[in-house]
This record gives sequence, C-alpha cells and structure tokens, in this order.
Amino acid sequence: MKQLNVGLIGCGFMGRTHSNAHRKVGNFFNLEYQPVLKAICDFNAEKAGAFAKQWGFESVETCWKALLARKDIDLIDICLPNNLHAEVAIAAAKAGKMIICEKPLARDGKEAAPMVKAVEKAGVPNLVSFNYRRIPAVTLAKQLITEGRLGKIFHYRAKFLQDWTISKDLPQGGDALWRLDVKAAGSGVTGDLLAHCIDTALWLNGSINTVNAMTETFIKERKSNITGKVEKVGIDDACAFLCRFANGSLATFESTRYARGHKALYTFEINGEHASIFWDLHDLHRLQWFDHKDEGKLRGWRSIHVTDGDHPYMKNWWVPGLNVGFEHSFVHQLADFLTGVATGKPASPTFREALETQYVCDAVLKSAKTCRWEKVKQAKAQ
Amino acid sequence: MKQLNVGLIGCGFMGRTHSNAHRKVGNFFNLEYQPVLKAICDFNAEKAGAFAKQWGFESVETCWKALLARKDIDLIDICLPNNLHAEVAIAAAKAGKMIICEKPLARDGKEAAPMVKAVEKAGVPNLVSFNYRRIPAVTLAKQLITEGRLGKIFHYRAKFLQDWTISKDLPQGGDALWRLDVKAAGSGVTGDLLAHCIDTALWLNGSINTVNAMTETFIKERKSNITGKVEKVGIDDACAFLCRFANGSLATFESTRYARGHKALYTFEINGEHASIFWDLHDLHRLQWFDHKDEGKLRGWRSIHVTDGDHPYMKNWWVPGLNVGFEHSFVHQLADFLTGVATGKPASPTFREALETQYVCDAVLKSAKTCRWEKVKQAKAQ
Amino acid sequence: MKQLNVGLIGCGFMGRTHSNAHRKVGNFFNLEYQPVLKAICDFNAEKAGAFAKQWGFESVETCWKALLARKDIDLIDICLPNNLHAEVAIAAAKAGKMIICEKPLARDGKEAAPMVKAVEKAGVPNLVSFNYRRIPAVTLAKQLITEGRLGKIFHYRAKFLQDWTISKDLPQGGDALWRLDVKAAGSGVTGDLLAHCIDTALWLNGSINTVNAMTETFIKERKSNITGKVEKVGIDDACAFLCRFANGSLATFESTRYARGHKALYTFEINGEHASIFWDLHDLHRLQWFDHKDEGKLRGWRSIHVTDGDHPYMKNWWVPGLNVGFEHSFVHQLADFLTGVATGKPASPTFREALETQYVCDAVLKSAKTCRWEKVKQAKAQ
Amino acid sequence: MKQLNVGLIGCGFMGRTHSNAHRKVGNFFNLEYQPVLKAICDFNAEKAGAFAKQWGFESVETCWKALLARKDIDLIDICLPNNLHAEVAIAAAKAGKMIICEKPLARDGKEAAPMVKAVEKAGVPNLVSFNYRRIPAVTLAKQLITEGRLGKIFHYRAKFLQDWTISKDLPQGGDALWRLDVKAAGSGVTGDLLAHCIDTALWLNGSINTVNAMTETFIKERKSNITGKVEKVGIDDACAFLCRFANGSLATFESTRYARGHKALYTFEINGEHASIFWDLHDLHRLQWFDHKDEGKLRGWRSIHVTDGDHPYMKNWWVPGLNVGFEHSFVHQLADFLTGVATGKPASPTFREALETQYVCDAVLKSAKTCRWEKVKQAKAQ
Repeated sequence: MKQLNVGLIGCGFMGRTHSNAHRKVGNFFNLEYQPVLKAICDFNAEKAGAFAKQWGFESVETCWKALLARKDIDLIDICLPNNLHAEVAIAAAKAGKMIICEKPLARDGKEAAPMVKAVEKAGVPNLVSFNYRRIPAVTLAKQLITEGRLGKIFHYRAKFLQDWTISKDLPQGGDALWRLDVKAAGSGVTGDLLAHCIDTALWLNGSINTVNAMTETFIKERKSNITGKVEKVGIDDACAFLCRFANGSLATFESTRYARGHKALYTFEINGEHASIFWDLHDLHRLQWFDHKDEGKLRGWRSIHVTDGDHPYMKNWWVPGLNVGFEHSFVHQLADFLTGVATGKPASPTFREALETQYVCDAVLKSAKTCRWEKVKQAKAQ
Repeated sequence: MKQLNVGLIGCGFMGRTHSNAHRKVGNFFNLEYQPVLKAICDFNAEKAGAFAKQWGFESVETCWKALLARKDIDLIDICLPNNLHAEVAIAAAKAGKMIICEKPLARDGKEAAPMVKAVEKAGVPNLVSFNYRRIPAVTLAKQLITEGRLGKIFHYRAKFLQDWTISKDLPQGGDALWRLDVKAAGSGVTGDLLAHCIDTALWLNGSINTVNAMTETFIKERKSNITGKVEKVGIDDACAFLCRFANGSLATFESTRYARGHKALYTFEINGEHASIFWDLHDLHRLQWFDHKDEGKLRGWRSIHVTDGDHPYMKNWWVPGLNVGFEHSFVHQLADFLTGVATGKPASPTFREALETQYVCDAVLKSAKTCRWEKVKQAKAQ
Repeated sequence: MKQLNVGLIGCGFMGRTHSNAHRKVGNFFNLEYQPVLKAICDFNAEKAGAFAKQWGFESVETCWKALLARKDIDLIDICLPNNLHAEVAIAAAKAGKMIICEKPLARDGKEAAPMVKAVEKAGVPNLVSFNYRRIPAVTLAKQLITEGRLGKIFHYRAKFLQDWTISKDLPQGGDALWRLDVKAAGSGVTGDLLAHCIDTALWLNGSINTVNAMTETFIKERKSNITGKVEKVGIDDACAFLCRFANGSLATFESTRYARGHKALYTFEINGEHASIFWDLHDLHRLQWFDHKDEGKLRGWRSIHVTDGDHPYMKNWWVPGLNVGFEHSFVHQLADFLTGVATGKPASPTFREALETQYVCDAVLKSAKTCRWEKVKQAKAQ
Repeated sequence: MKQLNVGLIGCGFMGRTHSNAHRKVGNFFNLEYQPVLKAICDFNAEKAGAFAKQWGFESVETCWKALLARKDIDLIDICLPNNLHAEVAIAAAKAGKMIICEKPLARDGKEAAPMVKAVEKAGVPNLVSFNYRRIPAVTLAKQLITEGRLGKIFHYRAKFLQDWTISKDLPQGGDALWRLDVKAAGSGVTGDLLAHCIDTALWLNGSINTVNAMTETFIKERKSNITGKVEKVGIDDACAFLCRFANGSLATFESTRYARGHKALYTFEINGEHASIFWDLHDLHRLQWFDHKDEGKLRGWRSIHVTDGDHPYMKNWWVPGLNVGFEHSFVHQLADFLTGVATGKPASPTFREALETQYVCDAVLKSAKTCRWEKVKQAKAQ
C-alpha cells in the first residue's frame, strides 16, 4: 500500500466530510493508495489547530501557498468557499499536486475554464466533489440507464428544496453563511443546489442544449456579517428552469431555500419508454423503479432498499438491510478517485466535466435575466 | 334482466352500505338479476320511513316477521346487531328466502350452527358479508396465491386497529353503540374486527388448527345507554392471538380499539418461499408485492396501484389510476352473489364457510380464558 | 324536496361519472333539490338506449336540440368532447336551462368567452366540472389556506402525469380517443390535464400573471380513427411551464402522457411561510401537511387520512378510516351545485371562473410557440 | 484528553462495527476519553493481522488470555460468538478491565448471571451492545415517553423480520454462520433478533411480567460447516410471543428469518392514551408520531426526519436533512459509554440490565416448550 499525503484546506462542513472520508476509506476499501492526513490549512490558526487535533492531522498551515510549497503533500483537497477555488486550484496544479475540489468548480464558467486548462496542462489527477453520484441508489440508477433498460427518455425532473433561509433575521456572509454572500458564492441556489441536480442529470441523461429559467430573491436585504450593515441580497433564493436535453427529452429543474418542511429534498425522476426511476435524498438508501416489462397486473413502483451485496459499493459495508448515510458518498468518491490514480483512468467528474455543469448554471442565470431560452456553451475538450 | 326483490332489515351503517350496493350494482355490472329495493324494515317506523325516502325503498315494514311473510320478497338482507341474526335468518330460510347476512354470522358458533343447517336444509342462496374479500387489491392477492406464486407459506400476520373507544365517557349499548354491549354483539373486537381478519386468512391461507390468545378490557365499567346505569363492560377491548395453520405456517393476529392514531388499520401480510404480499385498508387501492424471482439487484416491494382494467372488478369502474373506495367492496360482493344465484355456483363465504370463522373466534375467546392453546372446531360439511 | 329534471348529453366516461352522481347525491346529502334522470342524449341511438337502461334514464334523445326544446328538462349536463361544448351550452342558456359542463369549458378562450356571456345573460345557474376541487383532501387544503395558516406563499408546484399514449400504434380520434384529436380536444395535455391543475391552483393560490412554457409532441404522426389515414398529430403530448402568481409566488407546472409508471399522478404542493401542503390523486384520501409552528423536535409531514367526520363532505359517507374514491368528487360537486341553486349562491367554478383557466391555457400554448413569457388575459367580470 | 486503550476480540461483522466506532468517536464527540486501538485478538493469526492492518490496531494477539494479561489494555471489547462471552467477560472483570460485550449477554440467563456478578464485584464499567437504542429516532422515542407525552400505554408491538435462511442449501455453523449453530448461539432468532426488540421494549415500556410463545424450525436438518455432516438444526427459525408488561399494556413480538422480502425489518409501535410512536430500521432516520392533542381535522401520523440539530446526537454530525446510518448507533453508544466512564454514571444497558432481556428470552423459549404462559424472572439488583 502506498501512502498518499493529503493537504486539506478549509475547516468547515465540507472540511469535515472530506476528512472523514480520508480517515475511513482504507478501513472499507482495499486500495493501492492510503490517504494520510498530513496537513490541515486554515488562515485561522486556532481553528486549524483544533481541527487538526479532532481529526488527527499531523501538521497545521495557515497559508495555503505554504501548503502548496510543501514537498510532502501529494493531494490538495479544496474545501473553501467558491470564490477561492480558482486561485488555489490553479496554483496547486502548477505545483504538480493532485486536486480534489469542492463543488461547484467556481463561481461561473469564466472563472472555471482556466482551472480546467491548468489541471490538464499539469496532467494532475483532478476531481470535483459532486458526491451525490456516489450514493449507492444513484449509482444503481446510472447502471440501469447504462444497461439500456429505460429505452428512449422522455422526461427528466429534479428539484432540491430547503427551508433554512425563510427568516428575515438571518444575516448574510461570513464564516458559516458565506453561501448567502454573492461575492463568495457566485450565486444562490443555482450554484449551491442546482449544480448538484445538473451534475447528476448530465451524468445520467447526457448534455443539455437549451434552458429557460426564472429566479427570485424573496428577501431583498439582509444584514451583512462582514460589514455589519444591511445590504442588498445578491443571490437567487429560488430558481426554476425548463430545459431540453440533446437526447430529445424535456426537463424541469427547481431549487429553493423557501420550501417550508424540506431540509434537503433533492429528488430526481427519469421517465423512459420502458421504465422509470425516482430517487430522494431524504430516503437516500432507496431507489424507486417502475418496469413496464413486468407482468401487467403486477406492475408497480418497486422500492429497492439499496443495501444488498450486489448493489454499488455496498459489499464493502455491513450486511443487507443496514443503511449507510450521507457521509458514505464521500468515501465512495474518494475510493473511486484513488482507484483512478492507481489505474490512470480518472474518476468522474473531472474539472472538465464539472465545467459543463458550470456552463449550464451560467445559461440558467443568463436566461433568468434575458427572460429567453439560452443555449448552453459546450465544455467538451477539442 | 330479472328483478330480484330485496327486503332489507336494519337502518344503520350496514343498512346504508347494502342499500347503496343494491342501487349501484346494475349500473356497473351486467347481471342477469337486478335488485329492486322493495321493502325496508325497522321496528322504528319513523326511522324506516326516512330511510325508505332517502334510498328509494318502495315500502316500509316495522316487523321482520311481516316482511318474511311477503310473497314479493326474494332476498332478505340482514343488517341487524349480531344477536338478531340467528332468529331472523333461520326464519327467512324457512320462508324460502335468499339471505345475505352481515358479519359475523352470529355471536358464537353455537348460535351460528343452526343457521347453517337452516339455509342448507332450505337450499336457499346465502352469503355472509365479509366485504373485505372484494376489495380489488385483496382479490388480487387471492389470485396470486391461487396461481401458486408464493410457494410454501411460512408466515401470516394480520391486525385490525382502531382507537374510538379510548374515552372513559363513552357509554355502551343502544342504537349506535350496540357493538360495545356484549349481549348484542357477543364479543368485542374478536367478533367485530378479528372476524374480518380471520375470514380473509381462511380464504387466503386455509384452515387454522390451533390458537393461543389473550384479551383485555381496559375500561371495566361504562354507563349503559339502555339502563342508564354504570355497568360492567362485557366485551373484549383488545385481543391478540398466535396460531398455526394447517399448511404449517405460523401467524399472529391482533385487534384493539385502543391503538391511538388508527381508525381502521386492517392490514395483513403473507410470507411465502418465493414471494410476499402486504395490504392495508387505509390505502385499500394498493397491494404491496415482493417477488424473489425478480432480478437480484432490482428486488423490492412493488406498490401496485390496483386500478387497471386487468385488476379484479376494475374494468367495471373508471379508468386506470382512479381509485374506488370502501363502499365498492359491497357492490362487488353483491355482483358475485347475484352471479352465483344465476349460475347456481354460490358466492363465498356462505353461511357454512362463515361458521369456520365463528369457530376460530370461539377458540380464541376460549383460549383467552383457559390461557392454553385451543383446537379449532371444524365447520366443513360432512 | 323538489325534483330537478336532468338531460344529460354524452354516453362516455364522463356521462357515467355524472349519471352516477345524479343517482347517488340524494342518498347521501339532504338537499332541497333531487335530480331526476329524465333524458339521456346521444346521436347514436343504440348507445343511448343501452345507457338509459343501465342508468335508469326515463327517455332517450338522439338530437341535443330536441332535448333543449323539452319543457320537462331543467338542467343540461354536457358530457361531450370539447369542441361541442360551446354550441350546446350557448343554446342551452338561450333555452333557459341550468348547465353543468364538463371541463375544459371549451377548446380555447375565444370559444369560451361567448359561453360565459350566454349564461350570464340568461341568468342560469352554471358550473364547470373541475371535480378535483371536491376531493375532501383538496377541499381541506382550501380550508387551511383560507384560514391563513400558510402565511405568505413562496411556491406552488403541480403536475399531472400519465403514460397511456406511449405506444406508436395507438390511433388518434374517434369515440374513445377524441382526446388525441386536436380538432375535438383543442389541445393535448394542456386542456385535458393541466386545466385541472390550473383550476385548482387559481382556487387555492389566486391569479396567475405570466407564464413561460414548452410543449412537445413525441409521436408526430398517428393513424386517424376517423379518416383511416396516417395523419399529423396536432396535440401537445407534454407541456411544462414556469409561472408567477399575483401573490408573488413562483410555480412550476408539468403534464405529460409519457411518464412511464404513472396513470393519473396529479399532485400539487404549496409552500408557505408557516406551513406546506401536498396532495396526490393516486392516494386521494390523504393530505400531507407540514406545520412549522409544531414543536421543533417533533416537526414532520403529517399524513392526514381525510376520512373523519370533521373533514369536508365526510360526515355524509361512512365512518372514520373508510375511504371514498374518485367518483365521490362528482357527487360533492353536484351537492354543492344543487345547494347553490337552492340558495342562489352559485357553486364554483362558474363558467366565468373557468374562463380564467382557459386564458391561462391560452397563454401557455402561446408561450410554447413564441418561446417567451406571456401575460395571462384576465377573465374577471367588469 | 485521556487515552483509553482498547483490546478488541473478534474480527467478524461486529468487530468491524466496534472498530469503526472506536476510530470515529473522537472526530465527532468531544469526550474526556479517546479510545486507542491497542490490540486486536483472534485465534486466527492471519485474520487478526489483516484486520489490524485494515483498521490500524497497534498489535495483534491470538490468545485472549494473553490480551487480558496486558497492563496496557483498559477496555476489553468482546465481539465473539455468544458461547464465548461468559468466560471472557468474567476473566476480563477479574483482570479489572472495563468491558463492552456484544449482545446478547450470553446464551441464556444461567450463563449470564455470573457475568453480572463478576463485573459488579470488580466494579468495572460494563455495557452490552444493544446498539439500536442509540439510533437517533429511537432515542427520540425514549425522550417522548420519558416526557410523559403518551399517557397510559395500551399496546406495544415489535417485530424483526429477515429472509436470509430460507434456502435449504445453507449450511449451519462455522465462521460466518455460527448464528445458525445452537451450541455457539444458544438460540436462533430469539437471542439474535428478539433480544434487540426486548431490550428496546424494556427500555421504553418497562418490565415484562409474563409471556406466551411459539417457535418453529422450518428446516429441520442442515449440513454442518464444522463436522461436514447433515445434522439436526437446534435453533428457532421463527418465534412469536404474546406478553403483558408491568404497566398493564399488552404486546406482541415476532421474529423470523423466513419473511421473504425483509432484510432487517425491525419495527416497533407503542400506542398510548394521548399519542403513538412507530419506528422501522429500514428507514431508521424517521420516527412516526401521532399526537391526539393535535387539532382534530389536522391529526395525522407525522414522519419526523430525525436529522435536525435538536434531535438526539445529530448536532454532532452534518446539517439538517442529511442521514446517518446503521454504524452511527455504535458511535453514539461508545460516546455514551465513555461519558459514563468519565462521570461515573454508567451508560445503559449494563450487564445487569441486559440480564433482564436474557430472562425474558429464557421465559419465551420455555413457554414455547411448555405451551403455557411463563413468568419472567426478575434481574433487578437486591
């Protein structure tokens, strides 16, 4: 087994999910590479120190440039707000480091494109952390589609509903609330939540040609945690769009943080000629499956409890019937990334693949402004 | 089309469900016989008159003996409290009338056995109204079992949970509450609710050999609506029993009126070697089906929305996807009864078949007293 | 009790649902008016005769003009294909008849507007049969909204998914398939299914200002049952649209007949500041309710089994826990219509109210062509 | 932070769940004690070595007596088949070690009672790993009951259904199949699965007075992995029992490995005067809650997604809406055990508390033989 030294930047929510994955992956997956928690980096030294202690990082850095300069670091794991992805990733690529970057790749396609160039030029393994692909039920959906079981696809629909910003008293910006600050996040639900829906959709259903969107900011002004003043809110609180995929299917997407009663209701459904699929993050261990080829009087939606040994990733965990949770998607993602490093076949989505999601987001936000259908820029390599 | 003149006795809840069935059956089923609402009978003349007006009965009787004496009545439909079933049914049989009798057949097997003899001696068509057999999803379950899809049966479990008698202030007896009066009802949940569960089970899974029960009366005394005094409660508020079927399967049954949150939660589940079935009265239009022969990674419980044209009874109603409800089970039952009259092949359950349910109830109540396993008396004709 | 003589036109699926309602309403609701099935009308005499026999109509007409000329008819019940609504309804109004008209009011707003004028000029009671308003769970949703329990509304989403036209071999037009013939139907899923979603939405959430739609016809040509030739398909197989309500809420609507696995999946959800509501036609007896005012750790979506005596319409049926089905919505609608006739307070939706739905459909279909946001014409009376 | 050195015995399924808990607990919970994976012990040296490498144990032992003799071990974690629990635990207690022991405590009460004496005499912290108590939804159920929200309890029902031993070709005994070997396991589903149901029930609903059970062994003979011969099967494949709790409530319990379609369907329901609770291991992150104090027309079962910060244990994990899984129950259990060590208030269930479960199992198995109601021996300390 080879050690792979990790330098992780950012001590927030995502810093925790990634650290957990690095620590666990070797306990459950037999891999050529074993991540080692070499260094944690955060400009806040106290925070970084506490995080290192909690998670077992060997060292602490307060400057990411210093981290990149270290010879003993193989992989840079970027768990920073969106506005810092580009600069750090490009520098890391130049430093010859492998990179795992939290999603979305950047605040927009313009910012993201040079990141793609940088990693491709450097030839370093790179991955964007769209973790929901690796929920076993979602991976099973991919298998079923790849096996051609659905036939021609007619419809795709996805939504990601939350309700945590309904209060007018919630401030914007700063440590835990950078997702509400347009400068740090780039956009609201579009980059944060719809990006997940779009990534899954591109993976399962292919390219999107055109989109037609509307957005809304329900609370127009909030106190800023940074300036202390009441400021205009720059993000989209809600976004819905119609779109057409290259395969001829029609789709609806919607995301909001104003859907009372839903914490993280990411759902998608695909309707094909022969079969349909539905999945829901709130019950992430189940895949709903309807197969028209079943005998007529016995047709019905099957609730597949995706915990058996022949389900994706599940033979590595416990026994049939016992659920894994949210965090396991990060472990699966890391296992696939490390396998990609060992085999030379990169795990998905690479920076380039994530750029396609970014371009869809760009078209969505543009359409919301122009009130017209907008074409999606293509991210495919020449 | 031949007219079949109905004389219905009893203006309560069941009088309404049966009247509705008589009125509707010809609109939806093409049958040789068409029921005609000839006479309604209730000792309360005012109530009977109002009921006749509401439902379109042609005439009113206040004495059931007078009704039985009428030449223009073909079918006696007994919707009376349990204690009145035997006398009326035996007299009706002697008068040569066809009989539909509300369930349970009587208060106990001793009272029921002469009823069986009477109808068999008279040779009149007879049916006991265990309507839940004719919920389309339940009938579909029967088809699947008959087709041998489940293989050897290991387990059966049924329950019927309600919560309407929790209040200590609820009186017992009288018009709407005769089910709480042991003299009228014979027993509590055993005859009222478990009788349904047992009837379905005997139909789906064959004979029961032995039972082992416990019962409880949570509220020991209630005011009587009849005497106006506080009196001992004679019925069982709750009853649960273990049993063994002749086919070797094990079962649990439970019923109560003290299960907070459940109005009419009648559910049953059957586990066979190859497949399992689950049904729930609260979502009566669905059958849950698990087939182990499905491909491994796609196995799951199917929720069959039993509203398609190839589902039992459903081609007679609306279009796929549109639910029928509780009342339709009575229409189906009546359609089957009338078909039985026309073809000479009696619909189930006949009085004799219902006697088997009665004997199971007897053994259950006996076991609750003896605290031992009790054998079930056989009701099969010699 | 006063008799109200009904002349019903059309012996199809809707003719049956309406006939059933006329026959049943008096059994379950105590009303001043009692419908009498006076005459059935269909240009096909044989069909009309059989229908009369099955349902107990007293007479048969083969020409609707002859029906309208009859003095003994009080109410004309129009259960015809969409293209025949206008002519019949306008003539019926001129003849001074009350009118119940199947939905949608007409093929488009232009055709519908004169119908509104006609009934208003004639001063006759009029109703459009958007029956889903009267599913008890949907009516309960209306109560909760009216009581102000949701607070400011942020989102509305509705869909109506079916899968019955996926086969390329299905012909278009003619008796049972007029819904696929654009001349008879006016449009595809928009007028047939989205009209229901829109009617409910306008009732629950107020006026729609602007819409932005896409439509698709997946099967471009089908054999015509009328000409026997393969002809271009003129209807929309699928339609999705974004919209903004006057109350500031955002919405998505979608309908298709290509959603494999769904027979009649009409669902809607409303997200308000304080509470959210979800309903699903496949389980029509349940309302999902989330109340943010519930104690924090106990918040969750409640599945209300809408069968209790304090739920809309339910005290008229059976006992708590026992479901009613699809057909009962027509009985409730008729009961409300008859109450409106008696009290002079017309039941909803009147022709004028249904015109608003028509105008939304018009804007949707226009937007699908112009690829732009379109304003909705207002139907309110001056 | 103080180190607490762990010596874990057994490299099977439970060895993995416990090792994972030891590794993770410090990352998510701030505790005085931090477990250190000091030594893994298995008589199979190769297996132990591989396990040590996979999980990061510092050393390997092949004899548990050698492990117990080590001064650097503070805690013995017993993940062995049931027949080895007693000898190891008693020796560990004598050696002054803290003990965590997998459930059930032993093969029967006779074997378990000396274990209780041993740990109490030695005064060492001790815990039996009935992990399902620490699923957050189950812990929430306990909170609600403790707060008195349910009022008088009428009913308790639990089941644990599996389907993995239906095949006749499955052998018994040996490494992975010791649960089918009565010598190693003591009993079948009773000790393996019902023990979980009983432990939860005693915790939530108090003592059980009397039980009445039936058991069945469907496959009478299986090939032994140990002798290679076909041998009689000594375990119970299925067990169901009725019982009465000290608080007056009635209960049914059932477990089987022959319920086709269920992998690990552990469910329980409690019906109280004011409220009811339901939980299901297959959707372990949800608690179903019915509160009769809710406003009448809005009463319904709430599906509480137990992932909020005010839910038990959840503030230590991710953000609202994101599920944890099966393995987390072991982390919570360990956190509570370590807190108990620090505070001197032992976590539940101790060996003595687990003895009560053992006595219920004994009474159940005895009743299945005597075919009578049996009293449960009391485990309470004098």
